[in-house]
Amino acid sequence: MKEVKVKVLKPYNIYIAHDFNLFKGLLERYKCHSLFIVTDDTVYNLYKNYINQIPNIIGVTSIKPGEGSKNINTVLEIYNSLIKSNANKKTTMVAMGGGVVGDLAAFAASTFMRGIRIVHVPTTLMAQCDSSIGGKTGFDYNGIKNIIGTFYQPEFVFCDVNFLKTLDKRQFLNGIAEVIKYSIVCDDGLWNYLMQNKRGLLERESDKLIHVVHQCSKIKAKIVEEDEFDNDKRQILNFGHTIGHAIESYFNFEILHGEAISIGMVVESYISYQLGYIDISDYKTIVELIKNFGLPIKIKVDDVEKLMEYIKKDKKKINENIKFALPYNIGNAIITGDLKENFVKNAIKYCIGG
Amino acid sequence: MKEVKVKVLKPYNIYIAHDFNLFKGLLERYKCHSLFIVTDDTVYNLYKNYINQIPNIIGVTSIKPGEGSKNINTVLEIYNSLIKSNANKKTTMVAMGGGVVGDLAAFAASTFMRGIRIVHVPTTLMAQCDSSIGGKTGFDYNGIKNIIGTFYQPEFVFCDVNFLKTLDKRQFLNGIAEVIKYSIVCDDGLWNYLMQNKRGLLERESDKLIHVVHQCSKIKAKIVEEDEFDNDKRQILNFGHTIGHAIESYFNFEILHGEAISIGMVVESYISYQLGYIDISDYKTIVELIKNFGLPIKIKVDDVEKLMEYIKKDKKKINENIKFALPYNIGNAIITGDLKENFVKNAIKYCIGG
Repeated sequence: MKEVKVKVLKPYNIYIAHDFNLFKGLLERYKCHSLFIVTDDTVYNLYKNYINQIPNIIGVTSIKPGEGSKNINTVLEIYNSLIKSNANKKTTMVAMGGGVVGDLAAFAASTFMRGIRIVHVPTTLMAQCDSSIGGKTGFDYNGIKNIIGTFYQPEFVFCDVNFLKTLDKRQFLNGIAEVIKYSIVCDDGLWNYLMQNKRGLLERESDKLIHVVHQCSKIKAKIVEEDEFDNDKRQILNFGHTIGHAIESYFNFEILHGEAISIGMVVESYISYQLGYIDISDYKTIVELIKNFGLPIKIKVDDVEKLMEYIKKDKKKINENIKFALPYNIGNAIITGDLKENFVKNAIKYCIGG
Repeated sequence: MKEVKVKVLKPYNIYIAHDFNLFKGLLERYKCHSLFIVTDDTVYNLYKNYINQIPNIIGVTSIKPGEGSKNINTVLEIYNSLIKSNANKKTTMVAMGGGVVGDLAAFAASTFMRGIRIVHVPTTLMAQCDSSIGGKTGFDYNGIKNIIGTFYQPEFVFCDVNFLKTLDKRQFLNGIAEVIKYSIVCDDGLWNYLMQNKRGLLERESDKLIHVVHQCSKIKAKIVEEDEFDNDKRQILNFGHTIGHAIESYFNFEILHGEAISIGMVVESYISYQLGYIDISDYKTIVELIKNFGLPIKIKVDDVEKLMEYIKKDKKKINENIKFALPYNIGNAIITGDLKENFVKNAIKYCIGG
C-alpha cells in the first residue's frame, strides 16, 4: 500500500492499494465506529457485497448516478437519511463513488451538525486522481457548476485501483483526461510515462494504474499544500476547465467532464500558443496525446455566443475579462491576466468551429 | 469605540460603539469594496436610510423576520439574489439583523463559491452578545434546530448599541436571557453588574448597554478561543439550551429563544442543585434574577413525553443518555456525564409541571 501525506491545516493521508480488505483495517485504525455510506446505484450494485462486509454501518444512501444528481435535492436526501439513521457528531461518512458522490457527500458531511468526519473511497480514475484530494465539496445550482460548496478535508482517502477495472471505457477515459492535465501543468515524469505506457494503462494493468494514481496524488497534494483555499497556485489545475465547464453547461451536462475538459485543453493550449507560452509543436503534441487516448478534441458548437455567456458566468470570473490557467512549456503552467472576450472567441472558433 | 480581539485560527475583531458612521470607516479599512447586504424586513424598514448610505452595495436581500425563516428556502433565496447581483469571490456579505439573519447569511457566505467574506452587524442584544461571535452558522431542518451549519469566522463584527434602542421589549429581554446565562456560567463581574444595574439596563442607557455587550463579547471570545469547533469547553454556553431548544421545538418556535432558554435555565439549575453542584440558595437567586428582568420561569407543557423526544433528538446528544451544561457555583459551569432520562423528566415535572 502506497501512502501520500497531504500537509494542509488538518493533514491527512491518501492510501493507494489494490486490496479492499485493507480498508477495514484503516477504519479500525482511525476509530471510525459509526459509519454512514453515500454511494450511487452503479457502485452499489457492483459492490454491495463489499459494502455489506464493512462493520458498524448505521445507514446507506445510494443516489442516482451522474452529474444530474449534483444538486440541492440530493443534498437534502442525504440529510434526511442521516437524520433517519440517527447519525450524530461521532458518525463518519464514507463517500464511495466518483466525483459527484464525493462532492455531494463531503458537502453534506461538512454541513451536517456543523461537520462530521468524512472518508473518501473514490471508485473512478477521475476521483482517485483529482476530485477526492484537496477538500473541495460542492454542487451545481441555477445551472452554474459547483457554485455552492465548502472546503472540507477528509480523515483519509482510500484508493483501490481494482475499482477502476469495472469502469466502462468512457468513464475510464474521463479520468485519463485529468491525468493528462496533470502531466501538462505539473509534469514530474508523468508526461513521458503517459507517452510510453498508453497501452498498459488502457488495458488497466494494476501496476500502471497504481503508478498513475500515486503520481497524480503527489502532484495534487503538493499544489493543494501550497494553496489550500484556492487563491492562486491551485488555479493551475483549472487548465482546460474554463472552456470545459462552459461546454458542460452548454450541452446540459450530457457530455462527461473529462470529455469537456479534453476539448477545453485543446482550446486553451491553442490560446497558450497564441500568447507565446508554448510553441506550435507542443500544441500539436498535446492534441495528439489527447486524441491517441481516445478522447475528443472538438465538438460542434452552433452558438458560440451562448458558450461565451457560460464562460463569463464561470465562478472564477472576477472582473469583466476572463482568466485562464495555461500551460507554459510542458510541465508548467501560469495564470493569465484577463484576456479579452474576442480573443477567446476566436480561439474557440479556430479549434472547434462555430 | 471598544475592541475585543477573538484569537481563533483566523483572528478577528469585535467593535462596540454607538455611532453607525464608524462602520463606513471600518468597511474602508477592511477593503470591502463590493457589498451584499442580508437583513430582515423589520431592520430594513427601520434603517433603510442607514443602509442606503453604505457605499458599493451590489445587492440587498431582506428576509421575513423570525425563526420561521431559518430554513433551506431562505438560504436558496440568498443564493439566488447573490447570483442575480453578480456577486463574486471578492464580494463581502454584510449580515445586518438578529441571530436568524446572522446564522443564515453566514451559512450562505460560507458556502457560496466555497466561501466569501462576511461582516456581522448584529442589531439585537442576543446577536451582539452571543450569536454574532464564534463563527457558528446554520439553519433548522426537519424541525431540528441548527442541524445544518458550518463554522465560519467573520472579517469583523460591528456592534452599534443604538440598534438596541428600537427593539421591542420582548426582543430586548430575549437578549437579556443570554446575558444572564453568561453571568452564571462565566461570571467576570457580570453577575453583580446585572443585580445592580437592572433598571439602567431595562431603560437601555448607552453606557450600560456598551458595558454589557463588551463583557459578554470578552467572555464569549475567551470561550471560543479555547474551543473553536465546539468539542468541549464551548459546550458550557449550552446552559439552558438543552431544555430550551426542546421547548422551542415543542411550541413550534412560537416562543422566543431567550424565553425558552430562561425556562431551560430554571430547569437545568434545578438539575444542578439536585446533583449538588449549586446549593438551594443559588438556585433560588437564579430563578429570582430571571424573573426580575421580566423573563418567564415556567410554561405549561401538556405532553412531557413529547418534550423528552425533542431533548433526545437535540444535536448534542451522542449516546442514549443526555448531556447538560450546568452551573457549578455562580460563575462557573461543567458538562455533566450522561444523565438518565427519568431524572431529567422529574426535574421538568418539578419545575414546569406536566
